[in-house]
Amino acid sequence: ARSADVLGDHWNLLIIRQACLGTRRFDDFQVSLGIGRNILSQRLARLVDEGLLGKVEYQAHPPRHEYRLTDKGRDVYPILAAMAAWGDRWLTGPEGTPLVLPHTACDHDIHAVVVCSHCDAPLDVREVRATPGPGFPRDDLPR
Amino acid sequence: ARSADVLGDHWNLLIIRQACLGTRRFDDFQVSLGIGRNILSQRLARLVDEGLLGKVEYQAHPPRHEYRLTDKGRDVYPILAAMAAWGDRWLTGPEGTPLVLPHTACDHDIHAVVVCSHCDAPLDVREVRATPGPGFPRDDLPR
Repeated sequence: ARSADVLGDHWNLLIIRQACLGTRRFDDFQVSLGIGRNILSQRLARLVDEGLLGKVEYQAHPPRHEYRLTDKGRDVYPILAAMAAWGDRWLTGPEGTPLVLPHTACDHDIHAVVVCSHCDAPLDVREVRATPGPGFPRDDLPR
Repeated sequence: ARSADVLGDHWNLLIIRQACLGTRRFDDFQVSLGIGRNILSQRLARLVDEGLLGKVEYQAHPPRHEYRLTDKGRDVYPILAAMAAWGDRWLTGPEGTPLVLPHTACDHDIHAVVVCSHCDAPLDVREVRATPGPGFPRDDLPR
């Protein structure tokens, strides 16, 4: 739920994706996403507030800023890759997948797989339970 | 982008999460999510349209329906688990994580890791390129 608050937004996801592709400047985000300037401005401010993007001055006269992924923002990439893999499995038509992902670490075209941190098995909801941890909200205990 | 269209919505994510926890009935979604009935109704219809939930009559007189995860909807769970792991890393305060996830497959408390389908290495955006595949939208070719 905490993560969905910032990641459960169409534009936030697409902005982070675009930043992962190397986009840094307001106008480049605007053109590549076809997003209104007001909405873009508001979403970028939110992502800076949340610490996913850093706003960096790259020129002083006149002042110009760009938006760079922080470690926290860059760590969203695996989620985007997992979403893309889901889309490849469930939304792909006969024309094939929209993207191919070459992995420089192993030199193969790959897709994301979400696995268990302990046994490396792909996660299946029927094999994972969810129980309240130490930080479970007190006003939200399960019934 | 295709996936973000349906998954990039706060309520859709929370509804799927709740369905993964076993919720099936309208009133139970409504109470557990604290969501307005109009919004819930609209989101459930969208998720049925998109094939993530099936609407099943469980009683004929009077007619009563429940919402069950399809295979496509159930396959969203690994994305939610990856989001939860991101939240655990970046949004957790000193009180600790909100959830513990026992994995029945290996009998350990685990978290999700997003890895490469070929070499099993955790994915890092700096090691993955994205190139147009056969289904890349023709009107959206990279510059």
